[in-house]
Amino acid sequence: MMRMDPPRGFGTPEFQKRTVTIQAAMAQEGLDGLLVMSEAEVRYFSGFHTPFWQSPTRPWFLFIPAEGAPVAVIPEIGAALMRTTWITDIRTWAAPNPADDGVSLLSDLLAPLAQKGAYLGVMKGHETGFRMPLGDWEHLMARLTGLKIKDATKIVQAARMIKSEAELEKLVHICRIGSATFSRLPEVITPDMPLQEVFRAFRTEALAQGADDVPYVVGGSEQGGYGDVISLPSMRPIAKGDVLMIDSGCVWDGYFCDFDRNWAIGRADATAQRVYDVLWRATQAGIEAAKPGVRACDLFHAMSRVMSELSQEGGDIGRLGHGLGMQLTEQPSLAAFDDTVLQENMVLTLEPSLSYGSGLMMVHEENIAVTPSGGRLLTERASADLPVLFD
Amino acid sequence: MMRMDPPRGFGTPEFQKRTVTIQAAMAQEGLDGLLVMSEAEVRYFSGFHTPFWQSPTRPWFLFIPAEGAPVAVIPEIGAALMRTTWITDIRTWAAPNPADDGVSLLSDLLAPLAQKGAYLGVMKGHETGFRMPLGDWEHLMARLTGLKIKDATKIVQAARMIKSEAELEKLVHICRIGSATFSRLPEVITPDMPLQEVFRAFRTEALAQGADDVPYVVGGSEQGGYGDVISLPSMRPIAKGDVLMIDSGCVWDGYFCDFDRNWAIGRADATAQRVYDVLWRATQAGIEAAKPGVRACDLFHAMSRVMSELSQEGGDIGRLGHGLGMQLTEQPSLAAFDDTVLQENMVLTLEPSLSYGSGLMMVHEENIAVTPSGGRLLTERASADLPVLFD
Repeated sequence: MMRMDPPRGFGTPEFQKRTVTIQAAMAQEGLDGLLVMSEAEVRYFSGFHTPFWQSPTRPWFLFIPAEGAPVAVIPEIGAALMRTTWITDIRTWAAPNPADDGVSLLSDLLAPLAQKGAYLGVMKGHETGFRMPLGDWEHLMARLTGLKIKDATKIVQAARMIKSEAELEKLVHICRIGSATFSRLPEVITPDMPLQEVFRAFRTEALAQGADDVPYVVGGSEQGGYGDVISLPSMRPIAKGDVLMIDSGCVWDGYFCDFDRNWAIGRADATAQRVYDVLWRATQAGIEAAKPGVRACDLFHAMSRVMSELSQEGGDIGRLGHGLGMQLTEQPSLAAFDDTVLQENMVLTLEPSLSYGSGLMMVHEENIAVTPSGGRLLTERASADLPVLFD
Repeated sequence: MMRMDPPRGFGTPEFQKRTVTIQAAMAQEGLDGLLVMSEAEVRYFSGFHTPFWQSPTRPWFLFIPAEGAPVAVIPEIGAALMRTTWITDIRTWAAPNPADDGVSLLSDLLAPLAQKGAYLGVMKGHETGFRMPLGDWEHLMARLTGLKIKDATKIVQAARMIKSEAELEKLVHICRIGSATFSRLPEVITPDMPLQEVFRAFRTEALAQGADDVPYVVGGSEQGGYGDVISLPSMRPIAKGDVLMIDSGCVWDGYFCDFDRNWAIGRADATAQRVYDVLWRATQAGIEAAKPGVRACDLFHAMSRVMSELSQEGGDIGRLGHGLGMQLTEQPSLAAFDDTVLQENMVLTLEPSLSYGSGLMMVHEENIAVTPSGGRLLTERASADLPVLFD
């Protein structure tokens, strides 16, 4: 199959720009350095891209000084790959080493900051984890008395929320792959296929359409709807009267799509059709509202207003969409609590969901980029009516 | 295709046994409770199994008391799935909630321990991360003055290292799927296929062979060898004179295989053949030595002795294999520093590697279970000579 793929990776100017942008934010926050250690952040600032993060064994660190290029403090096994990026100051140790997994190297690197009582930013806020042993962090802090720690979550998230043209190109590409996969699904599944095999067929088709990987497939298929949206598939065959939903995060060059599709199997009942229609129009309201200057919570309310035709509950899922990029879910949250002001080239999922019947639910999802004329669809818009498969 | 799969999931007795086992270790360590929050540990003690962890947005917690069943403190979106496990005490909140992402629920749960100055175990040691915002942890600790924190990494890792019969069955199954995939590879790739497409063909074949997912594929293909073992594939077509290596972690029901295979393309040169032979025999020495009572470092030395025919370096990768199970890499490390005593039903990768020529390296890998008569191969043993493809 001939595929037209955009270029992989990014040029050095993109990484320089990302670094200068975060350094400007660091200056505003009074940060003299920033230490990141999660896959997405290390990759965002360095270009270091490997599935090796699947192994939880080794920590990886990238230090961004107030000025100049980042410094990598990484296991030796990653040195060859890191040398292919724009990073030139690469300090390594033979990891794993339970006695000292990078702590001495970090301590040496950060000692000058500690000596002058400077501020180091780390990400310790909402939607973060800490990808090094907490014990090692405590040891490091004990060595670096004088160093002041400040939460840098907001500035890193703010920088990552707005996608560059090159990032957008990758997101457009993976959303196109996801759309092509969903549109081919009716041809690669059969009317009595176990849900597990439906998922397998989806994954296989996504690879054929050009996805590098399909790390996220969830969904359900039950009579008249489905009861859960994060489960692994059962061996139960899909059956007439089911509503089948597949929600997927496919990846191309390290960027995710994240959207779902619903199908009625054999026939669609009136309730499912009605719920689908409301969710489709709620999504439409979200698409129209997604302009620069609008807040994330405004987008939430624009969708909620349509959904209030059927339900007054906000729902316990907590939000109606989120940012999208190098991670399946990023900032902002389309939720009442999030007053992030949308800017051009933010990429979002619109993901309204409704509960109905006894324990059933439905989720509808599209991916968009924020533009002055509203959301630009990156996904091929789902049909306005609940599609019926195998009728 | 008809596949004979073992049963999925585990019965409640298995979770009860895991819980009683860790509680005995907790008693020995003087721990009054244990709080876990990473995917593998939450799943290990509860059975909660979902790809939803791909989303970094929400934290998930499982508390194991000194006696009795664990308590789940989780986002409401996971409640339906958690109710299908053996856990009955499930406390939820509408997440994400930046103002309080489970902190109050945790605080309420742990307050009785804090009041009596009890010890809470958390995993903060070697090969761990902390999958909640560090800031939230600090807030929680500020609320729970009196609570004493102790590192529980060793006891949790010790429990997880020894696989139950049901776990072994899953590991046998995914290793068989991985072996079948590798043996089919020559039929699904072509002599001038770009490495990227070789990886895609591998993933697709693994799904066809029954893998649920193929989250880890790395490798290389260059003239006479490859220079790096954690890289994503290039678009360069494989070529006569290359050594092609694919290293993969496939998953079935949440359990990984992790092994690689090497092929010479068109012809094998004498150096590559010699390195391959030494690595094959080093692996063989590891297989023979992997008996209960032997230490992880002994296994390292058994393999190193064979490798010393070609190299005196220990290598900077730091180890010659590791534990395997719910994660691609687990304890122990087959390394000079690791004196873990092997026990029956530990599952290990044997993964000797050598550097040679100018910047080339080779890795050989098999998966075994420790038995009284030595390592039981879970993978189909690689051929004793470097296989030549497309000759």
